[in-house]
Amino acid sequence: MSFEFSIHSASGASRAGVFVTPHGSVETPAFMPVGTLATVKALDPEDLVAMGASMILGNAYHLHLRPGDELIRDMGGLHRFMGWGGPILTDSGGFQVFSLSGLRKVSEDGVEFQSHLDGSRRFFTPEAVMQIERNLGADVIMQFDHVIPGQSDEPVARDASERSLRWLGRCLRETTERRHDADKHGEGAEQALFPIVQGGTHAQLRREACRAITEMHDWKGFGIGGLSVGEAKPAMYEMLDVVDESLPGDGPRYLMGVGFPEDIIEAIRRGVDLFDCVAPTRMGRNGTVFTAGGRINIKRTQYRNDPKPLDESCDCSACRRFSRAYLRHLFVCDEILGLRLLSLHNVHFLLSLARSAREAIAASSLDAWSTDWLARYQLGKSKS
Amino acid sequence: MSFEFSIHSASGASRAGVFVTPHGSVETPAFMPVGTLATVKALDPEDLVAMGASMILGNAYHLHLRPGDELIRDMGGLHRFMGWGGPILTDSGGFQVFSLSGLRKVSEDGVEFQSHLDGSRRFFTPEAVMQIERNLGADVIMQFDHVIPGQSDEPVARDASERSLRWLGRCLRETTERRHDADKHGEGAEQALFPIVQGGTHAQLRREACRAITEMHDWKGFGIGGLSVGEAKPAMYEMLDVVDESLPGDGPRYLMGVGFPEDIIEAIRRGVDLFDCVAPTRMGRNGTVFTAGGRINIKRTQYRNDPKPLDESCDCSACRRFSRAYLRHLFVCDEILGLRLLSLHNVHFLLSLARSAREAIAASSLDAWSTDWLARYQLGKSKS
Repeated sequence: MSFEFSIHSASGASRAGVFVTPHGSVETPAFMPVGTLATVKALDPEDLVAMGASMILGNAYHLHLRPGDELIRDMGGLHRFMGWGGPILTDSGGFQVFSLSGLRKVSEDGVEFQSHLDGSRRFFTPEAVMQIERNLGADVIMQFDHVIPGQSDEPVARDASERSLRWLGRCLRETTERRHDADKHGEGAEQALFPIVQGGTHAQLRREACRAITEMHDWKGFGIGGLSVGEAKPAMYEMLDVVDESLPGDGPRYLMGVGFPEDIIEAIRRGVDLFDCVAPTRMGRNGTVFTAGGRINIKRTQYRNDPKPLDESCDCSACRRFSRAYLRHLFVCDEILGLRLLSLHNVHFLLSLARSAREAIAASSLDAWSTDWLARYQLGKSKS
Repeated sequence: MSFEFSIHSASGASRAGVFVTPHGSVETPAFMPVGTLATVKALDPEDLVAMGASMILGNAYHLHLRPGDELIRDMGGLHRFMGWGGPILTDSGGFQVFSLSGLRKVSEDGVEFQSHLDGSRRFFTPEAVMQIERNLGADVIMQFDHVIPGQSDEPVARDASERSLRWLGRCLRETTERRHDADKHGEGAEQALFPIVQGGTHAQLRREACRAITEMHDWKGFGIGGLSVGEAKPAMYEMLDVVDESLPGDGPRYLMGVGFPEDIIEAIRRGVDLFDCVAPTRMGRNGTVFTAGGRINIKRTQYRNDPKPLDESCDCSACRRFSRAYLRHLFVCDEILGLRLLSLHNVHFLLSLARSAREAIAASSLDAWSTDWLARYQLGKSKS
């Protein structure tokens, strides 16, 4: 078996497990750093290894445009191209295509849109996206889905969710056929196609999507999409509870695009195993860092001569070596090292958070741990 | 002895030696990466350690303005501030002050100038610069000197050279007095003040400067300034020959601001031991790299799908892991990792070049090695 998910311990809805892929294992719950354009922004693959990152993301839409998925295929695939030997997941571009301004035309066949780079017209179908993700060669590939604004009403959400399910069927057919071809010729590593549960903030739609997905195929894992896109937190938590009850328990659940500390903790409590978010690197490049006592922005004058590390409880390579005063200096002077060190700290912060949650699950102390953690984090927030 | 220079082998004018400082030893000839603002641009101190860099530079002028030399002193000095445990040399700001546009008024006392950041008026004297360099706490500190344009005529060059010598006397007096104070209180690590030989392209002035410097004090090492600033190459080589004959042989000679491969090799052949240059990191950020076969710019379309490393004979961490196709992609997409990897390669290239020269000197084969090296490098140049 190229893919396997085993749960080592559970506590309420939450689980600590191991997800095995052709490029290595992922201890869950896990945060996956985002390498949109075949690089986790400002970081080196060596940094990620040193921090204990196991699985990272790439983005089909962005890599299709630059440098092109066929070029990456010709260079030996995404792992080799970007120097990352561990597991990779590619998203399908659904989120990007539906987030673009400019022309966008959805039909049953697929989506016509304009490149954000040069305005050129492009057409994504489920089959075309599967081809792109096959060229990239990630371990886990996400289905192409119809993404809608977070607060869409029921009819709009139903239409998109049902179309996403039909597109999932086409993704599955396409990958299965190509897999048969590849097996005949002994080519290519196995890829796990993950479906994506949509349905907005409508519990009934989420339930129906879970049922349809489950009936369609025996999946290796599941994506949960369309959350943390502007809806109220209680609505997100309710949807996670619904999905937790409705999905089979034997595959990892990946909550797409979610990655603020409080959201990660609440989602782990509701049975989610995998997370990704661009926030840690984007915030890092902007001078903002997570700390156990809340967020801080290093550019503030108060850190000018502060000899303390970013976070005294952190053992990342930035906190072990540098003062806030030095890091602030780097930002004031627009020095590139500052972008790297703060990105590194933030990614390390979320990797550690997921590891701590994993340990708490194994020790049957997730409730107490998460209550304490959130109280300390929120306290810092209210102070700053 | 906090500072010591021993020559292990010599071949013609060139020497392979070891320069001992309070923060460690430097095997010479050596290239010193430049950390203008307390960071070698785009690199991490760990990168420098991994590449075998031994001594790095900081810049008194820039650090005085941002974050301020007193702040760095309060944070424990430059080594601790920037997380670099090895030897550091600070230049005196002479070159920067005299390169600034805007107001500049030289008197016997010092130089009045305007900050390039906010136009504020500042006044540097030899004594003030010694105080700044003491606050920074580098191992080697350069004297404050009067720098003139590269092709100045004899009277202008003489005036500046003689003023630089008088300022050297003041730098020496100031550091000696402060050293006595510090010793009385058991404070501070020893710093070696290096004089700077000026005199433009006028052999007689260079000879006179060497004589005056030698008679003034028993120095731990020597700077050679005002070269590679626009004069013809033969003029630079002639000045190096003159200085080589005129300086004592028992201290390392540092050719300030020189760092293109061909210049480094020609200078090593003329008895120079230490080099620095911002070119490797500046070029790296611009997409240009040194290779054994000449320079290339990674942004060119021809590298779009080139699976080769930047330089097939290089064992730096960029060349061991990444293709030209990947590095070009990073530059096309303005990804920060590209800036780091190309800077890293270029710095590694010059560190390796100096190491190879050292081995050639020890093997008494510098002439043959340098002829071969330059032929290969020039051949690539003429092809590109």
